[in-house]
Amino acid sequence: MEVDKKEEIASETSSEQVVNPWEVSAKDGGRIDYDKLIDQFGCQRLDESLIARVERLTSRKAHVFLRRGVFFAHRDFNEVLDAYEGGDKFYLYTGRGPSSEALHLGHLIPFMFTKYLQEAFKVPLVIQLTDDEKCMWKNLSVEESQRLARENAKDIIACGFDVTKTFIFSDFDYVGGAFYKNMVKVAKCVTLNKAMGIFGFSGEDHIGKLSFPPVQAVPSFPSSFPHLFPGMDMLRCLIPCAIDQDPYFRMTRDVAPRLGYSKPALIESTFFPALQAKNGKMSASDPNSAIYVTDTAKDIKNKINRYAFSGGQDSIEKHREIGANLEVDIPVKYLSFFLEDDAELEHIKKEYGEGRMLTGEVKKRLTEVLTEMVERHRMARAAVTDQMVDAFMAVRPLPNMFE
Amino acid sequence: MEVDKKEEIASETSSEQVVNPWEVSAKDGGRIDYDKLIDQFGCQRLDESLIARVERLTSRKAHVFLRRGVFFAHRDFNEVLDAYEGGDKFYLYTGRGPSSEALHLGHLIPFMFTKYLQEAFKVPLVIQLTDDEKCMWKNLSVEESQRLARENAKDIIACGFDVTKTFIFSDFDYVGGAFYKNMVKVAKCVTLNKAMGIFGFSGEDHIGKLSFPPVQAVPSFPSSFPHLFPGMDMLRCLIPCAIDQDPYFRMTRDVAPRLGYSKPALIESTFFPALQAKNGKMSASDPNSAIYVTDTAKDIKNKINRYAFSGGQDSIEKHREIGANLEVDIPVKYLSFFLEDDAELEHIKKEYGEGRMLTGEVKKRLTEVLTEMVERHRMARAAVTDQMVDAFMAVRPLPNMFE
Repeated sequence: MEVDKKEEIASETSSEQVVNPWEVSAKDGGRIDYDKLIDQFGCQRLDESLIARVERLTSRKAHVFLRRGVFFAHRDFNEVLDAYEGGDKFYLYTGRGPSSEALHLGHLIPFMFTKYLQEAFKVPLVIQLTDDEKCMWKNLSVEESQRLARENAKDIIACGFDVTKTFIFSDFDYVGGAFYKNMVKVAKCVTLNKAMGIFGFSGEDHIGKLSFPPVQAVPSFPSSFPHLFPGMDMLRCLIPCAIDQDPYFRMTRDVAPRLGYSKPALIESTFFPALQAKNGKMSASDPNSAIYVTDTAKDIKNKINRYAFSGGQDSIEKHREIGANLEVDIPVKYLSFFLEDDAELEHIKKEYGEGRMLTGEVKKRLTEVLTEMVERHRMARAAVTDQMVDAFMAVRPLPNMFE
Repeated sequence: MEVDKKEEIASETSSEQVVNPWEVSAKDGGRIDYDKLIDQFGCQRLDESLIARVERLTSRKAHVFLRRGVFFAHRDFNEVLDAYEGGDKFYLYTGRGPSSEALHLGHLIPFMFTKYLQEAFKVPLVIQLTDDEKCMWKNLSVEESQRLARENAKDIIACGFDVTKTFIFSDFDYVGGAFYKNMVKVAKCVTLNKAMGIFGFSGEDHIGKLSFPPVQAVPSFPSSFPHLFPGMDMLRCLIPCAIDQDPYFRMTRDVAPRLGYSKPALIESTFFPALQAKNGKMSASDPNSAIYVTDTAKDIKNKINRYAFSGGQDSIEKHREIGANLEVDIPVKYLSFFLEDDAELEHIKKEYGEGRMLTGEVKKRLTEVLTEMVERHRMARAAVTDQMVDAFMAVRPLPNMFE
């Protein structure tokens, strides 16, 4: 029985900054220190050599999100690459809690990156829609949670996933059978004290919250999908996600060896910042804090001009003199996520940082980039039919999933 | 929103005697005081007038277990009878945790009684085999729990249930769909503090235990069985069980109105005593504390002669003089469960209580009664094929379930 002491300790300590699936807060309201988070959680930094190795193994340039440190941390990703190099495949698992009708850009990031991984490595993918979680956390009815799951599935499909390699499922539809058996096996291995330590639950929380972590854990195990991975119980799982989901998978990795399963590997992203803020996650409750995939070109322009926090100086004279503070500038931050052209991004950072380019010009360029991206998404989503959703969500084998 | 204050309070108070699904202990190791338990739990006594009403409504003599106070307490059984008298049917729900291969006589009691209720009222029945619970509580594998569930199903079927009115299910097979949705709805309504108060869980218990109560709760709701009760969401449920299961259904009844469901009614039994003890439940861990359905005639004779606690006096002279103490005498207690002839039982109690009959004679009669009963069960069980188990456990409609 393997004991991963480092993970164990990390999960129990209370620390200056709080990052879990329900709360992201830095010390004294400042920035999240991602380096410290790596130490705190006990994960590993995704360094240049690993990125170079991905490029070599996939024979293509690494995704912008890798090159620019959006996905910055990992657990055992190197092991997955070792195995891949030796001819062993893996599968991808990611998910979404369907709590709102419209997705914002922050929601798209793991899916855009997962699509890249699926294409680059030619591997199957399972996408969990945790409608049960959202029904329990938010005050949503079962029916409304299920409706949102299907609506969100359309946005996910619009990201361009390959239906011959992708299984999307809603918990309310899919929990049962082998999946439920794995839930029970996981639940047996986690004490209440441990769950309260990892997730910060209290006695006033309902037992549905306590029951949920195994539901998010078990898609990490191929035996939860007998229609996809029959006889492939040791197939490794790689999970792309934002780092606030790490507690779920710390727990999963702790439990996996005791069940005779492989630990899932992780590749983890920073948070996508709100328009106003230097840090933290975008908030679905304040519509002006985020750009939504349903926003019009006019909405996007207004939001960026009115709300995007600028690192430019108060007066043009001062700006020309000392330049913008790129560290806190949201338009530059957003461009670093979504402007693919490395040379243009470097040019903007240099010109803006040295005061030759003004905030208005940077915001104009960001407006163009996001308008085009959102328009492309809207068109792709409009083409997603109910039949396509049914096809992705059908419980079926994926015969050529590794090709 | 209905609030049942009496139940609420009962579930929170700690009391002198502890009775829950995992622990039955009286104050100072004495007897369970069933009258106090009724007050403590907030249920109602099953009195003579209610038994007379059952006889009138079913046009048959009440079952021995009713006439002799084995089933002694209830919740809203009168309401179920009111509705039945007005032409409204109900369904029965009982269950078993399959932790051991062989059942003992105490295990058979709820099933013998449920069979009587099914026949007398002509109503459908669902039987839950909580293989998930036993997998979590005992250290059983999923496969072993499922195997035991099927073995136990054979003993249950041998009690004579009608396959056209009875659905037997294992949680590992059946959890999912509408059943899982109800589990989530229930879990949302129960705080951790509340669950710890009702069930006595501690921080060292695993979260599987905390997740289980909704699994036992939801067969109380007809919508958990869409193949059986489509469009019958308000059909009432009557649960025959031993009173140690009351905490589960106190919780269920507390939650039901908030979900728009009817509260299940209950009809609850005392515990069947161990051979040695004046009180408590039989223990599956000490084979000499109970008569098993697999015991031979010789086993039964030996166990009764060697272990059945006698209320007879130490010497024949003293016995002839003051008679047996029937209150503590296990052979008489057992006969009051299983000797159907009221006149013979009264005769034995009178003769034995007044010293004219000796312990050996009473034990001999008990040996005959139990040997015949166990032999009848063994033959019935030997006739239960795997195909019959499959038939009872098939997810199917029961077209004539109320006839």
